Amino acid sequence: MKSDFKKISIIGLGLIGTSILHAINTKQKERVTTFAYDVNSEHREIVSEMKIATFVCDEINDAVKDADLVILAVPVGSMKSVAKSITSSLKEGAIVTDTGSTKNSVINDVNPYIPTRVNFIPSHPLAGTEYSGPKSGFSSLFENRYWLIVNDKETGQTKKLANFFENLGSIVETVSAEYHDKILAITSHLPHLIAYTIVGTASDLESDLKNDVIKFSASGFRDFTRIAASDPIMWRDVFLNNSEAVLEMLQRFNEDLSDLQKAIRKKQGQKLHSFFSRTRSIRKKIIEAGQI
Amino acid sequence: MKSDFKKISIIGLGLIGTSILHAINTKQKERVTTFAYDVNSEHREIVSEMKIATFVCDEINDAVKDADLVILAVPVGSMKSVAKSITSSLKEGAIVTDTGSTKNSVINDVNPYIPTRVNFIPSHPLAGTEYSGPKSGFSSLFENRYWLIVNDKETGQTKKLANFFENLGSIVETVSAEYHDKILAITSHLPHLIAYTIVGTASDLESDLKNDVIKFSASGFRDFTRIAASDPIMWRDVFLNNSEAVLEMLQRFNEDLSDLQKAIRKKQGQKLHSFFSRTRSIRKKIIEAGQI
Repeated sequence: MKSDFKKISIIGLGLIGTSILHAINTKQKERVTTFAYDVNSEHREIVSEMKIATFVCDEINDAVKDADLVILAVPVGSMKSVAKSITSSLKEGAIVTDTGSTKNSVINDVNPYIPTRVNFIPSHPLAGTEYSGPKSGFSSLFENRYWLIVNDKETGQTKKLANFFENLGSIVETVSAEYHDKILAITSHLPHLIAYTIVGTASDLESDLKNDVIKFSASGFRDFTRIAASDPIMWRDVFLNNSEAVLEMLQRFNEDLSDLQKAIRKKQGQKLHSFFSRTRSIRKKIIEAGQI
Repeated sequence: MKSDFKKISIIGLGLIGTSILHAINTKQKERVTTFAYDVNSEHREIVSEMKIATFVCDEINDAVKDADLVILAVPVGSMKSVAKSITSSLKEGAIVTDTGSTKNSVINDVNPYIPTRVNFIPSHPLAGTEYSGPKSGFSSLFENRYWLIVNDKETGQTKKLANFFENLGSIVETVSAEYHDKILAITSHLPHLIAYTIVGTASDLESDLKNDVIKFSASGFRDFTRIAASDPIMWRDVFLNNSEAVLEMLQRFNEDLSDLQKAIRKKQGQKLHSFFSRTRSIRKKIIEAGQI
């Protein structure tokens, strides 16, 4: 499919940023010029050597000034300073988007620095792995994964952006920022918090026990360690910037966990059995929805 | 490799029991006669039709009376009644083992029913999937997975049993019952409890939100639903029969979760970052240990 964007700027060269570059190179039929920038000079060097961007720029303003589309793929805690530093260089008519995992915070941080004749349309690809850094990207990361556009209405600009994400292989849906932050709190942020916690609990065990936890990890624990190996800076920023929705979901989780704890202590077999039977049906629905 | 057991009885025809039958058929070089029994007549019929056992018996005593090795592959809450019902039929010199996920409780439940000239050697294969029932078994389930033998000392009998498990593809280690129950509490039982809880929390959400949780499950939640789809009866019994170790680990987990909750509420970025960095190293060790 044809892309409306001829010059694309990628700010932030981690898993998401480099995967976008790989995907553009693999999936875009016609020529696109890409400008890549990362605050970390080593990451810029690695991307230069990988030859996945047309230009790797040493100055952030050089990376955005000619772009029709600017994609901010930095941790959500860095969005504000990045937006501030590019505000005067953005081209008239350009679209700015981001790939952050929290949306209310990013909108609050970025919007004040978007000039009148530039459009900021927040977005979030629901795609990732436990790896991070410029070498972790790959072109199929977004294939058949949802890429959420956060906007109240569909416009010519959102259609162009959706078309671009679809070209990279994604399924595009539009949601509000509030709804996004709530859904992600339960589907992504809370599961990550829980996984980090349980792996942390295990790593505090006496050393004999800890070694055997690693050895016998295949019995369930291992799945949690994969999730808990994700980028610490990205996740620190997520929890700081979606704290309200995460704390609300965490409260519900804690109530349910207390209930089960009590059922175990009181040896209430029937209660445990009915709880464990109910959760099975959710898995069935996910399989039916084709999300496996 | 040669097996010391010529006649093997499998009691319980779920994922583990039928996988043992498949594995015997595929991996044992010489002829072994197998006797299969399940309290559920439909399961017996299915296994008969699958032709994976030499004999499918309608009476449990017929299934054990000639066996050199009797394997109890039933939920740990059923071990006592099964042991009681076979006690008078066990052959002199036979070895009885089990595959239960809790060991102290099984020893307490089974030992009183083991006749003097029969040996009970508890065991536990650290292998499983989220599927259950007689059709869920497959011959490679135990390949390269630990199969723990619970015994204080190595004897000729434990060596024979270890040899049999190794023939099915497993790596055998010997541990004490107390240590087993503690290790499994953190590597398996607590992760399952947490996964059940979070999926339960999500299934209580208002229906719009719940549908989108299913739709957008790929962002972390999906991994938990797999774990939370495991057999409800098996897991009810695990929590009832290893409650002490599980509640102890749960207390540690709750303390860590409260700490992180406070850090999120107080926006303590440094604390979150250092916690999330620490958990990464556990994943690295699991990869180094070849358990991925």
